[in-house]
Parts: sequence; structure tokens; C-alpha cells
Amino acid sequence: MTGKFISLEGGEGAGKSSAIKAIEAWLEQHNIPYLLTREPGGTPMAEEIRELVLSAREETVAANTELLLVFASRVQHLSEKILPAIAQGKWVISDRFVDSSYVYQGIARGIDETVIDGLTNTFLQGQLPDKTLLLDVPVDIGMSRVQTRGEANRLDGESLAFHEKVRAGFLARADQEPSRFAVIDASQSIDSVEQQIIAQLNQLLLGTSA
Amino acid sequence: MTGKFISLEGGEGAGKSSAIKAIEAWLEQHNIPYLLTREPGGTPMAEEIRELVLSAREETVAANTELLLVFASRVQHLSEKILPAIAQGKWVISDRFVDSSYVYQGIARGIDETVIDGLTNTFLQGQLPDKTLLLDVPVDIGMSRVQTRGEANRLDGESLAFHEKVRAGFLARADQEPSRFAVIDASQSIDSVEQQIIAQLNQLLLGTSA
Ligand SMILES: Nc1ncnc2c1ncn2[C@@H]1O[C@H](COP(=O)(O)OP(=O)(O)O)[C@@H](O)[C@H]1O
Ligand SMILES: Nc1ncnc2c1ncn2[C@@H]1O[C@H](COP(=O)(O)OP(=O)(O)O)[C@@H](O)[C@H]1O
Ligand SMILES: [Mg+2]
Ligand SMILES: [Mg+2]
Repeated sequence: MTGKFISLEGGEGAGKSSAIKAIEAWLEQHNIPYLLTREPGGTPMAEEIRELVLSAREETVAANTELLLVFASRVQHLSEKILPAIAQGKWVISDRFVDSSYVYQGIARGIDETVIDGLTNTFLQGQLPDKTLLLDVPVDIGMSRVQTRGEANRLDGESLAFHEKVRAGFLARADQEPSRFAVIDASQSIDSVEQQIIAQLNQLLLGTSA
Repeated sequence: MTGKFISLEGGEGAGKSSAIKAIEAWLEQHNIPYLLTREPGGTPMAEEIRELVLSAREETVAANTELLLVFASRVQHLSEKILPAIAQGKWVISDRFVDSSYVYQGIARGIDETVIDGLTNTFLQGQLPDKTLLLDVPVDIGMSRVQTRGEANRLDGESLAFHEKVRAGFLARADQEPSRFAVIDASQSIDSVEQQIIAQLNQLLLGTSA
């Protein structure tokens, strides 16, 4: 039996990292073999590419250079780590995947959606997640959670308008692919968010064994 | 006045590096401002990407990962170095450019031409060289020149059949775009090769000032 591929998406502070803990407990309970991973990164080479993208440099980095590097790292992550694990019957849970490129590189770097569609079609060839859990939260709640978490983050300096565009960008993607996406109301308590997520996992598991 | 973009292509030992010296002398004679560059590489970041591609690692590198990295480095080279120099009126001479991807990544890595076409159309947007000088030489002559040069090269270990495919691959590209390519008979003496190249440069210069 092949495994499932689940991605978690949403803005900073939505609760993705917290959700992964609940998902891990559920997978253990159900004796499902699994792999937890994250983007950008996921393999040693993909992590090196990530560092190359993020490191400060004097040279201006063209937006398309960055996009191609992020896709190079994603293709490596997918073909060398995610797909082999799924083939072994594992459920793969990734903290962010291609939808984050549409939202962040689209919005922050101004790259046209059709360009990202081209790379997605050619290099991911429909190997999208079986289910994408979008943790949706109003911007002010997300921001205050990040402050509580107390970590500095490179997106902290962004304007409220930027974070509003990110939120709207993710919701627009969910509208475009309603059967792949499940929108989770992440403004609720941690317990309620976990229940919403577990309902999705149970549905996915039923779909598998049916 | 904007400059010109010229690439040199051909297998190992065809005489590309030697030709660049003759081209440089001609540019000096004509008081034409110029930039000599090469691929893969060409900017500090593009060189870092090149190292990432070439460095030995335990992890298997997917063919598409390599292709996307090579294009990331090319987009950076083009947008941050080649295009600005052309805009300043310089003639840019590059030792290899996109045709080498078609031939080497196409043949050595088995990537379909249409995939490379997609990246070329989207990310180079027709910013191909004004003229591509293909130095064509029978494989045995090229190989014996490389041996004379006495440098170890990562393509040395390749079979004769591989080098024949590379030669045929370049000639096929020249057939597809006869107005961009000039095929130089590089089996001749260095003097004769230089004369063929200079004839092309004179023609390009006439085209510019006409
Ligand atoms: N539903 C929730 N209600 C209240 N606080 C939450 C909730 N989910 C997460 N948090 C807290 O908010 C902060 C950010 O959560 P985190 O899971 O790190 O978000 P993300 O990974 O999406 O950036 C953490 O301190 C976390 O404990
Ligand atoms: N037309 C030629 N006839 C004879 N030897 C040549 C000719 N062109 C180049 N060489 C020699 O062949 C070797 C390889 O040439 P080089 O310019 O380094 O090729 P490439 O850069 O295409 O790999 C060098 O030693 C060079 O001096
Ligand atoms: Mg997180
Ligand atoms: Mg050379």
C-alpha cells in the first residue's frame, strides 16, 4: 500500500509546527509509518540550496534566480525523500510545500502565477499533496502568537498589508483547489484546531482503506 | 548603442578558449568595449551554484534538480552581468551558453528537449546570443587536442560514442537555428579558424553600423 502526502500551509504563527505534534500522535496511535519533513530544505543538498538562497550577499539576486533555486530544492526533496517514503507506504507530512511558493514568491517577489504554474506542471508533474491543511488565522492573532513564541523571524519586519496579502493568497489557492485543500479555522483553541485536523486525517484514512 | 552577445560552443578541445584570444585581439583593434565571461558561472552567486552542482555528494542528484540549478545560475549570469554589459554598449563573449545545456544535459542526463525549451522561453525570454560560433571538429581530433593540453577533465572518461552524440547534438542545434549559428570548421589550422571567426565578427560589425 502506498502512503499519503500531506502538506501544512499558512502564515507565520498560524500553528503549523504545533499541528505537526498532534498529527504525529495520531499517526502513532494508528500505527501508520510516517516521515515528518519541511520546506525549504528536506535533504542535505536541498538544505544547501536553501542556505544559498537565504545568505546575505552584495550581488542582487534576480527574482527568477530565487524561484529556480527554490524549485531545484523542491524537486530534490520530492524525488529523493518524499516520493521514496510514500512508495514505502509512509505518510509524509511536510511543513510547507509548493503553495508557499505561489504565495510568498508570488507576493513578495512579484512573480507571475503562470510562471510558477509552468514549473509546477513540468517538474512536479501532478505530484501534489493528497491533502493540504491550510491553517487560516486573522493576521493580528497570528502576529501576536509569533510575538508570544518570542523568536525573531525574517518576516517580522513585513507590514500588516503584506501579511494580509499572504492570508488572502492562501485562501485564494484553497478556492482554486477545493478538493485538495481543507481550510482549518486556526483562530480557535489548540484543542479545537487539533480536532479539525484529526477529522481530516480520519477522512483520509477511510478513503485509503475503502 | 547597445552591444552584441556572442557565445562560443563546441565539444572539449574544439578550440573555444583559443578562439577567445583571437576575438579579444579583434575587439581591441576595433576599439569595441567588451566583456569576456563563461558558463557555468559568471557571477559570484552563479559560481556558488556551479560548485553546488559539481561537488561530490552521497545523495543522488535528480537530473531535474541539476537542470534547475544550471538555469538558476544562467538567469543570474544573464540578468546581473550579461544584459547590463550589453546595455552599456559592450560586446559580451561567453565561453558556452544555453546550447551547452541542450547538448550536455539533454544527452548526458537524458532530459527532454521540450523541458529545456520551456525554461528557455520562460526564463531567457528570447535573450539568446546574437551570434553563436559553433567550433565543430571530428571527435578524434578534439580528443587528441585535449590530451596535448594535458589537463584532466571530468568528460575525459566519457566514451567515444558520448562525444559523437555531443558533436551531432551541436550540429542539430545549428540546423534548427541557421541564422543565429555560424558553424566554424575547427579541424583546420589555428590561423584558418581565426580567419573564419573574424569573418563572422566583421559581418556582425557591419550589421551593427549599417
Ligand atoms: N490554536 C492556538 N491557540 C493559541 N496559541 C496557539 C495556537 N496554535 C499555536 N499556538 C501558539 O502560537 C505560537 C505559534 O505557533 P506555531 O505552531 O509555531 O506556528 P507556525 O509554525 O505556523 O508559525 C506558538 O507559541 C504556539 O504554541
Ligand atoms: N585549430 C587548432 N589546431 C590545432 N590545435 C588547436 C587548435 N585550436 C586549439 N588547439 C589546441 O588544442 C587544445 C584545446 O584547445 P582549447 O581552446 O582549450 O579548446 P576548448 O576550450 O574548446 O576545450 C589547446 O592545447 C589548443 O592550443
Ligand atoms: Mg513553524
Ligand atoms: Mg576551454
